[in-house]
Amino acid sequence: MTFRDKVDQWLDTPFVTRFILGVILFNSIILGMETSATLMDQFGSLLILLDNLCLAIFVAEIGLKLFARGTRFFRNGWNLFDFTIVAIALLPTGQGLSVLRALRILRLLRVISVSPSLRKVVEGLVSALPGMGSVVILMSIIFYVASVIATKLFGGSHPEFFGSLGASAYSLFQIMTLESWSMGIVRPVMEVHPQAWMFFVPFILVTTFSIVNLLVGLIVNSMQEVGGREAVDETAHHRTELLSRLDRIETQLAGLSRDGAEPSAAKRQDALE
Amino acid sequence: MTFRDKVDQWLDTPFVTRFILGVILFNSIILGMETSATLMDQFGSLLILLDNLCLAIFVAEIGLKLFARGTRFFRNGWNLFDFTIVAIALLPTGQGLSVLRALRILRLLRVISVSPSLRKVVEGLVSALPGMGSVVILMSIIFYVASVIATKLFGGSHPEFFGSLGASAYSLFQIMTLESWSMGIVRPVMEVHPQAWMFFVPFILVTTFSIVNLLVGLIVNSMQEVGGREAVDETAHHRTELLSRLDRIETQLAGLSRDGAEPSAAKRQDALE
Amino acid sequence: MTFRDKVDQWLDTPFVTRFILGVILFNSIILGMETSATLMDQFGSLLILLDNLCLAIFVAEIGLKLFARGTRFFRNGWNLFDFTIVAIALLPTGQGLSVLRALRILRLLRVISVSPSLRKVVEGLVSALPGMGSVVILMSIIFYVASVIATKLFGGSHPEFFGSLGASAYSLFQIMTLESWSMGIVRPVMEVHPQAWMFFVPFILVTTFSIVNLLVGLIVNSMQEVGGREAVDETAHHRTELLSRLDRIETQLAGLSRDGAEPSAAKRQDALE
Amino acid sequence: MTFRDKVDQWLDTPFVTRFILGVILFNSIILGMETSATLMDQFGSLLILLDNLCLAIFVAEIGLKLFARGTRFFRNGWNLFDFTIVAIALLPTGQGLSVLRALRILRLLRVISVSPSLRKVVEGLVSALPGMGSVVILMSIIFYVASVIATKLFGGSHPEFFGSLGASAYSLFQIMTLESWSMGIVRPVMEVHPQAWMFFVPFILVTTFSIVNLLVGLIVNSMQEVGGREAVDETAHHRTELLSRLDRIETQLAGLSRDGAEPSAAKRQDALE
Repeated sequence: MTFRDKVDQWLDTPFVTRFILGVILFNSIILGMETSATLMDQFGSLLILLDNLCLAIFVAEIGLKLFARGTRFFRNGWNLFDFTIVAIALLPTGQGLSVLRALRILRLLRVISVSPSLRKVVEGLVSALPGMGSVVILMSIIFYVASVIATKLFGGSHPEFFGSLGASAYSLFQIMTLESWSMGIVRPVMEVHPQAWMFFVPFILVTTFSIVNLLVGLIVNSMQEVGGREAVDETAHHRTELLSRLDRIETQLAGLSRDGAEPSAAKRQDALE
Repeated sequence: MTFRDKVDQWLDTPFVTRFILGVILFNSIILGMETSATLMDQFGSLLILLDNLCLAIFVAEIGLKLFARGTRFFRNGWNLFDFTIVAIALLPTGQGLSVLRALRILRLLRVISVSPSLRKVVEGLVSALPGMGSVVILMSIIFYVASVIATKLFGGSHPEFFGSLGASAYSLFQIMTLESWSMGIVRPVMEVHPQAWMFFVPFILVTTFSIVNLLVGLIVNSMQEVGGREAVDETAHHRTELLSRLDRIETQLAGLSRDGAEPSAAKRQDALE
Repeated sequence: MTFRDKVDQWLDTPFVTRFILGVILFNSIILGMETSATLMDQFGSLLILLDNLCLAIFVAEIGLKLFARGTRFFRNGWNLFDFTIVAIALLPTGQGLSVLRALRILRLLRVISVSPSLRKVVEGLVSALPGMGSVVILMSIIFYVASVIATKLFGGSHPEFFGSLGASAYSLFQIMTLESWSMGIVRPVMEVHPQAWMFFVPFILVTTFSIVNLLVGLIVNSMQEVGGREAVDETAHHRTELLSRLDRIETQLAGLSRDGAEPSAAKRQDALE
Repeated sequence: MTFRDKVDQWLDTPFVTRFILGVILFNSIILGMETSATLMDQFGSLLILLDNLCLAIFVAEIGLKLFARGTRFFRNGWNLFDFTIVAIALLPTGQGLSVLRALRILRLLRVISVSPSLRKVVEGLVSALPGMGSVVILMSIIFYVASVIATKLFGGSHPEFFGSLGASAYSLFQIMTLESWSMGIVRPVMEVHPQAWMFFVPFILVTTFSIVNLLVGLIVNSMQEVGGREAVDETAHHRTELLSRLDRIETQLAGLSRDGAEPSAAKRQDALE
């Protein structure tokens, strides 16, 4: 057992995983406190010090994992997830990059990769995505087509909603979520284009219906997967068992009728003698 | 094999279908770029040229299909879909017909008819429609009845919402989607007719409940169709198999007891002799 | 066969039911046209005449049904439904009773009682109601409790939303539908009572969760009813069949072993003689 | 049987439970009437007297239950529920504690603990909670992370929405319910930060998708629990039955072939003699 294997094992001990979990939660509280101006005025330098300390621990952990597992490290999706989140914090936070500083709190998401039950939930959510592929492509096509039409028809009169393809796509997303679709967007548009409802009402019906069907598909799929697999296997096993039992009975019966035929033939022989 | 059959086969080769798919996507990007005023100022004539080139390719494709398949062409729903979409682009785009120009982007929908997986999704959505027929008729009746009542009761005081049957139907659709139903419509109406909630709250409950039941019906239906069909067939097959096996065993047993009866009768004969 | 039976049969002939359906649809169009001020100015007296003619036909139909079926008429829920709708039109429409005139369009709902497929949908919706009984009572309790609390806490500062029990119940219904709950109601309330979210956010969570569970219950129920019944019956039948077959085989086997034992005993007798 | 047992039995007699139910409903009406200023002006002292009378009855009931059941009383969750609700009414209602007075109406919730069918519904809702544990934790993490990011990015420009962690969490909850998310919050924010949709649109998609999956999970779970248990037990029973029957048949067959072999051996013996 090499030194690397020992390090690998040590990283998986309950003590280390619990310690890392504790550091993640502690770091999240620190990052939450950094959002308060009054706390930053009083304890600013302490909070930043503690934040950097937590970051140093994460870097050390990832470094040890990289050392212990080598290229194997990058084969696991959750390791890549951890690596990316820690790497974000190490990027320079110059002018205009305050967004990257805000993204530091994404470290709290490491709780998911550490906790098995949360991993299972997220893996469940992610595993539902491929089944949604076709519907997502269909929705993208619908959105692109509707955005082009809306931009051409209503872009001139209402540039704040439909001035460009991007603005139209955003407005159509808002309409799909049914937020202020009528009072905020369609009624004002109808004042200029009285027939605009002929575009928006079908759009709402089509997108809502697609999403409802996506939902129905998700329910049916998880029903079959969860409920079906084990029961189906058990049923198949039972059926094979039944048929093989009946085979044995038939073989026994076939043996019996041969058995019943031969002795009587022998007996006739006996009687003749 | 006639020339027409050869053309038909050539139209279904992977090269041609991929080329058409490429032209559709390229045309969609061109039509998207046409929405941008700055791009149109700079490359307007080029974009329109490329658009017309794509259209020419589509017309040629549809023309070849028509030549190769004759009247069979119109028996397939997806062919009709393609034909209509391309035909829209060929209509004259005179004054006031800018809507038709905007509808050119509908060509992107041809991606659906080209891609088998998207066709399956859309066919799935469309196949769910007939089962919704009764509920759609019921909803239409509810909407017509509610529109007439709303127009008669609130049309005088709030013509912007309930001035005509059409305005009432649109407002009731907005109320059904729960968008600003209270703050935007019912509260202002209640300032004039304090009992108006006795009309709108039941309307919301009835329409929402109908839609929820429509949803429940869709889920139950697709569950039965998808989950049930194969398993039910397999179960029926297994049951027939089991019963026929038992039949064979019973026949063997019947044979055995005759077999066991006859020889002993023969033996008695032997013994008598 | 009495005269009354003959009338009863005649009322159920396809000619009469189709004629009544036609009158219902014609009457609905007339009532729809009555909502238009311009049409009323031009053809007002004609429309009212036609409306009264339709009403006379309905009264005659109901009268004949009453004559033919006697008290049996009132035992059918759909007959009561028809009777009430026609009776509404016969009530005096004096001052302040314009509501009753608006309700005349409810006659269109008679289409439901005439069409078997629509009757089935409505009966399906109504049959789902009893299963919702407990949840409806629970929701009523939650609404009453929340209305009393909201009236006491926020009635003083926001009488337009929570001035009385009725106003509070209406506002809470609006909040439950998530319509402008935050921007329209809770944010203004929080300006006076900063802790108001501690009442409204749990209210939203509890009512939404209850409704989601109601929905889940509806889905599970219709799933069991529709999908299960037949399949369960078939399975039970198959199981009984299987077991009775095995019984017969066992009986045959028992017969065989007796059959195999007796003759040999007889043979021993033969041999002794 | 001790005196305590007799009291315990008497508390469970239909007369007492119905009397308590009546007092609960009467008290709820009284508390509802207390919200009306005009009724309080006229009958204020009477209403408060009746309210205190009802409270005295509840205190007596809980006191008797405590006496009769001792520490066992606190082992039942519904008893604790009743105890807490009555205790709230006994707390001093000094200045600023008007909230506690408003909470008196919570006594109506005792109807749930008295009525078996409502208890079942509530127990059903509560039993669905543990299965939601992981998703609730995941949602809390998402909300905390999103609140920190929103506070850091948009807190400066829009303090009314994202000024502190609490304000951000509330605004994000509003956005998750889709209430005025675009018109009320995201469009104003996008005027300052044009890329803000890159934060809010994914937030909406992730939270909505998580909730949809939670819903799907709830449906699948209750489906399995309700529909499956009995049918699965019955199937298992049938399968064991079938296999044991086949065992018996095989034993009989084995006996037959031994039976068929022995007598013939004996017969040969007979024949030799």
